[in-house]
Amino acid sequence: MSAKVGVIMGSKSDWETMKGACDVLEELGIPYEKRVVSAHRTPDLMFEYAETAASRGLKAIIAGAGGAAHLPGMVAAKTVLPVIGVPVKSSNLNGLDSLLSIVQMPAGVPVATVAIGHAGAANAGLLAAQIIGAFDPEVRARVEARRERIRREVMESGETL
Amino acid sequence: MSAKVGVIMGSKSDWETMKGACDVLEELGIPYEKRVVSAHRTPDLMFEYAETAASRGLKAIIAGAGGAAHLPGMVAAKTVLPVIGVPVKSSNLNGLDSLLSIVQMPAGVPVATVAIGHAGAANAGLLAAQIIGAFDPEVRARVEARRERIRREVMESGETL
Amino acid sequence: MSAKVGVIMGSKSDWETMKGACDVLEELGIPYEKRVVSAHRTPDLMFEYAETAASRGLKAIIAGAGGAAHLPGMVAAKTVLPVIGVPVKSSNLNGLDSLLSIVQMPAGVPVATVAIGHAGAANAGLLAAQIIGAFDPEVRARVEARRERIRREVMESGETL
Amino acid sequence: MSAKVGVIMGSKSDWETMKGACDVLEELGIPYEKRVVSAHRTPDLMFEYAETAASRGLKAIIAGAGGAAHLPGMVAAKTVLPVIGVPVKSSNLNGLDSLLSIVQMPAGVPVATVAIGHAGAANAGLLAAQIIGAFDPEVRARVEARRERIRREVMESGETL
Amino acid sequence: MSAKVGVIMGSKSDWETMKGACDVLEELGIPYEKRVVSAHRTPDLMFEYAETAASRGLKAIIAGAGGAAHLPGMVAAKTVLPVIGVPVKSSNLNGLDSLLSIVQMPAGVPVATVAIGHAGAANAGLLAAQIIGAFDPEVRARVEARRERIRREVMESGETL
Amino acid sequence: MSAKVGVIMGSKSDWETMKGACDVLEELGIPYEKRVVSAHRTPDLMFEYAETAASRGLKAIIAGAGGAAHLPGMVAAKTVLPVIGVPVKSSNLNGLDSLLSIVQMPAGVPVATVAIGHAGAANAGLLAAQIIGAFDPEVRARVEARRERIRREVMESGETL
Amino acid sequence: MSAKVGVIMGSKSDWETMKGACDVLEELGIPYEKRVVSAHRTPDLMFEYAETAASRGLKAIIAGAGGAAHLPGMVAAKTVLPVIGVPVKSSNLNGLDSLLSIVQMPAGVPVATVAIGHAGAANAGLLAAQIIGAFDPEVRARVEARRERIRREVMESGETL
Amino acid sequence: MSAKVGVIMGSKSDWETMKGACDVLEELGIPYEKRVVSAHRTPDLMFEYAETAASRGLKAIIAGAGGAAHLPGMVAAKTVLPVIGVPVKSSNLNGLDSLLSIVQMPAGVPVATVAIGHAGAANAGLLAAQIIGAFDPEVRARVEARRERIRREVMESGETL
Repeated sequence: MSAKVGVIMGSKSDWETMKGACDVLEELGIPYEKRVVSAHRTPDLMFEYAETAASRGLKAIIAGAGGAAHLPGMVAAKTVLPVIGVPVKSSNLNGLDSLLSIVQMPAGVPVATVAIGHAGAANAGLLAAQIIGAFDPEVRARVEARRERIRREVMESGETL
Repeated sequence: MSAKVGVIMGSKSDWETMKGACDVLEELGIPYEKRVVSAHRTPDLMFEYAETAASRGLKAIIAGAGGAAHLPGMVAAKTVLPVIGVPVKSSNLNGLDSLLSIVQMPAGVPVATVAIGHAGAANAGLLAAQIIGAFDPEVRARVEARRERIRREVMESGETL
Repeated sequence: MSAKVGVIMGSKSDWETMKGACDVLEELGIPYEKRVVSAHRTPDLMFEYAETAASRGLKAIIAGAGGAAHLPGMVAAKTVLPVIGVPVKSSNLNGLDSLLSIVQMPAGVPVATVAIGHAGAANAGLLAAQIIGAFDPEVRARVEARRERIRREVMESGETL
Repeated sequence: MSAKVGVIMGSKSDWETMKGACDVLEELGIPYEKRVVSAHRTPDLMFEYAETAASRGLKAIIAGAGGAAHLPGMVAAKTVLPVIGVPVKSSNLNGLDSLLSIVQMPAGVPVATVAIGHAGAANAGLLAAQIIGAFDPEVRARVEARRERIRREVMESGETL
Repeated sequence: MSAKVGVIMGSKSDWETMKGACDVLEELGIPYEKRVVSAHRTPDLMFEYAETAASRGLKAIIAGAGGAAHLPGMVAAKTVLPVIGVPVKSSNLNGLDSLLSIVQMPAGVPVATVAIGHAGAANAGLLAAQIIGAFDPEVRARVEARRERIRREVMESGETL
Repeated sequence: MSAKVGVIMGSKSDWETMKGACDVLEELGIPYEKRVVSAHRTPDLMFEYAETAASRGLKAIIAGAGGAAHLPGMVAAKTVLPVIGVPVKSSNLNGLDSLLSIVQMPAGVPVATVAIGHAGAANAGLLAAQIIGAFDPEVRARVEARRERIRREVMESGETL
Repeated sequence: MSAKVGVIMGSKSDWETMKGACDVLEELGIPYEKRVVSAHRTPDLMFEYAETAASRGLKAIIAGAGGAAHLPGMVAAKTVLPVIGVPVKSSNLNGLDSLLSIVQMPAGVPVATVAIGHAGAANAGLLAAQIIGAFDPEVRARVEARRERIRREVMESGETL
Repeated sequence: MSAKVGVIMGSKSDWETMKGACDVLEELGIPYEKRVVSAHRTPDLMFEYAETAASRGLKAIIAGAGGAAHLPGMVAAKTVLPVIGVPVKSSNLNGLDSLLSIVQMPAGVPVATVAIGHAGAANAGLLAAQIIGAFDPEVRARVEARRERIRREVMESGETL
């Protein structure tokens, strides 16, 4: 089945973080593709990726980057698919630079930004699933089931404090 | 036609900011509803709003709040619809508190966060449209047309510097 | 004897921090209960916990959470007992996000916020004791004795620099 | 009736902010006293104020200060009454310095910190009332009635967006 | 004479700031061109502008942008001319977001970043002149003369304190 | 010979940092005393220490503290000797809270603040020596000799890069 | 009588702030000189000023600057007199850049840093007086009298809240 | 061949970072010199270095420093060669102090600032090469070849995610 979500990242070193998005997509049975696409080192590939995303059947793009993180915003400038930005933790400023570079987009080109680092990457996968689930009852049911399972785990976790 | 997007805000004073989201939705012909729903002052209303959102036909919820901005995250905890959070500029910390309170969600419950203030509110409306447009070619065409119009405006704006 | 203070936390991983609050309450002989209650993963449990807290005899609630830390503020929205918020250190922003998410509450729903991390958790237990001590001379005497003991320890600690 | 809450501030210029605490206490019928007490300019008065607070019948102290805001923490060092700290907005750093100076207390001496500025001051008054209300059903009823009134106001405010 | 420096900005509203760069270039007799080029709203124009800059005879590009300021970094990704980035003051975060988005570039694609706002824009013009002056003695002499004039102005300004 | 400089710190754990001040004083032959004096845990001792400092012959006080660092400012409120504040690195906010708590003193009570952590502690010792040296040529000569020695070390250090 | 304190500032526009230092020195009868000396625009004058300061009889130098505020630290590098640094509020970052540029000096060259802006400038004058007062009983008496006067003003100010 | 680029740093401990600049210059075949020059500990050497840089044939200076990083700005004040500033990561504030101290220069004296730490140092070398390359086709060709090589590496790196 063809990919519904594209997961891209600015550098191979972002994979450790971005794997979290792929894990959630896999768990929820949503077909995805993944690739290193760098805004600064492969700008033409980035534009081409973004321009062809919708016609290839993608419904959302998840883009992770750190520091002066331009990938999510530039991809969003070249497609009208929803783009989810994951601020990867940077080595010096803890991802605050990544967060501000991704979230503070000017009016006209939104990026759906999630939390810095691992939690954000997992939530990016989940958000993509929720977007699809808003139009696909089966996916929505899987997201709801996952949430219910987590709820039960929390309910039980307190007993062993 | 019934609302596809719910626009809620923590306080009536957020309307000046959140109007930007409604303006974009109106411009793009996407039916929406709007309401003051406060996480801290009307918590039960908030839960009820979130719980019934999907069954009422909403495809996305836009929630704006400032300071310790809990509205987007708590609504997201009670629905699996995509929730878009708008950090409203706060009087003392310029919205940095709003931004961090909205974006730094734990794994399991994402909020699609946009920029602080007016640009963010407009982009929240646009992001909702892009989410719908991923599944509705007509809406996507309208988003693309809007983008093309803005592109032309920028191209022309440079001539009168 | 029934619990006077409720100690809750958003995740089992917060226990390492929140244990500090329980240790102080134990040391001061104040009965307490402890539980994992997550704002985002168990929102209904959170509301039920807050709504029934006063009738179960609690005099204060200590709530610890990290990141977009909504637990203290949302519990405070559902009870008029004093709620003490402990910002748990977050992995990326060192608890600054937790602090701002907890302390910057809008007018109408206060959270008594303490320091980030371990010192804050210990002080949350102490603050609960001081609140009870304002109305219970015996508890107050125990708090004063503890403080006097610490004072003497500091006085002596300087001798071995 | 003798004062139950002491409201102090580091400078007369803080009154514009701290008035918010007094207004709430007045509204809730809680007797209070107010005074300028400066940590840096009247340190002996500050210590005397704190030392005699409990014996004069106070149940809580609200202390507001800005910049290197030492008043709440130093008062807390000299009494075991609960001390509520209000970070007054500072002219250069918007109250971030005030907030950190008040909230980051070391283990052993807690300050119950509220939000920066006006919202924080109002909440300080409310928190003092909630502390008293935890032991005085009549005060608690008044706090609950106030909250219910505000809830209704929010419910109605949305209709005129 | 053909332009030696290209001055571009993400939005017409940046002109008030970026005019400072043009004023300095004019004062120093360095031919320049200016244009609105938006990373997010005219991405293809941006790429084309950057790709053709060197062949059109430019020796440096000055790019100003605010918020999630991607223009300088993306232009730098498409040319090996030196790119000077001016962080325009943003309405909410005072240009800290602009600064971090511009300066924190990954290894491989540098942006020569100057100060936020007006001082930065003027210095961008000056830096472009200094770059040219490193290879053109006449331009260098003009920069030195300008500096000497400013030195004398400061020497004299103190007399009227 | 009686102490000329008093070195105090809020906690024994600050000694690792504050040792840097004592080392410099020792190296420069300036007699000093050292002691743990806690603003929050031994407030009366702190006041007594500050009040008697001048009459005991001290010419300057060096005070180190972390977090809500009130020690330097409160000592400064009780003496007109110059007080040098050392922001000790805090476990969560890296000493930014310590720095702001120490440096942002209101008009009327200055604290001479130095850098966060080890460099700051060493510089506190040096600053005390420079204050004394402004009135004691022998001490000044020793400070100058130390500086000359360091200058030579730097000059030589480059040769082995 | 020859100047005991030198007050310098990086730009004439800093005078509005630095006047606060001169006012205090005047009030306390301490002879001073004042001058615009810019680290970046008159570097040689700055070095000459610092090198000759001690031999001209100065006992302390007060240096104010904003933004990348290098004046205090560079003056401190060229004299062993105590140098007091005043972070002037900058137009974009509110003086946080000025503060960090002044206070974070490396080991070996201390700058006695005071608060940002007007309060800091006044305290710089006072700190210079306290340094002189540590060796001159008459000056110390004047500082103590000033402090006592302020104490009484605060005591009285509370009566008219 | 005589050096075209001067690489200086405030302390030998900065070498670990600044080596990145030298590595890039070496790789691109651009002759350079390197040296420890401290703004605070060897101020006269710094001035002499800057004053003679142009006449010795340098085309750009790369200066790295941490904390109150005055080296780049002070060198820039004494030469009209382009000066590239590298903010070295500081031990307490992660290089945010270094960054602001370097980038926030006043109008009249620009510093071309790059990212904090290793990525910034490498980019400083690259920026120097790009400046030279704007006037030397051979150097430009080498920079372009390097960039093309990196582009290919990224294209291939994605295959092994």
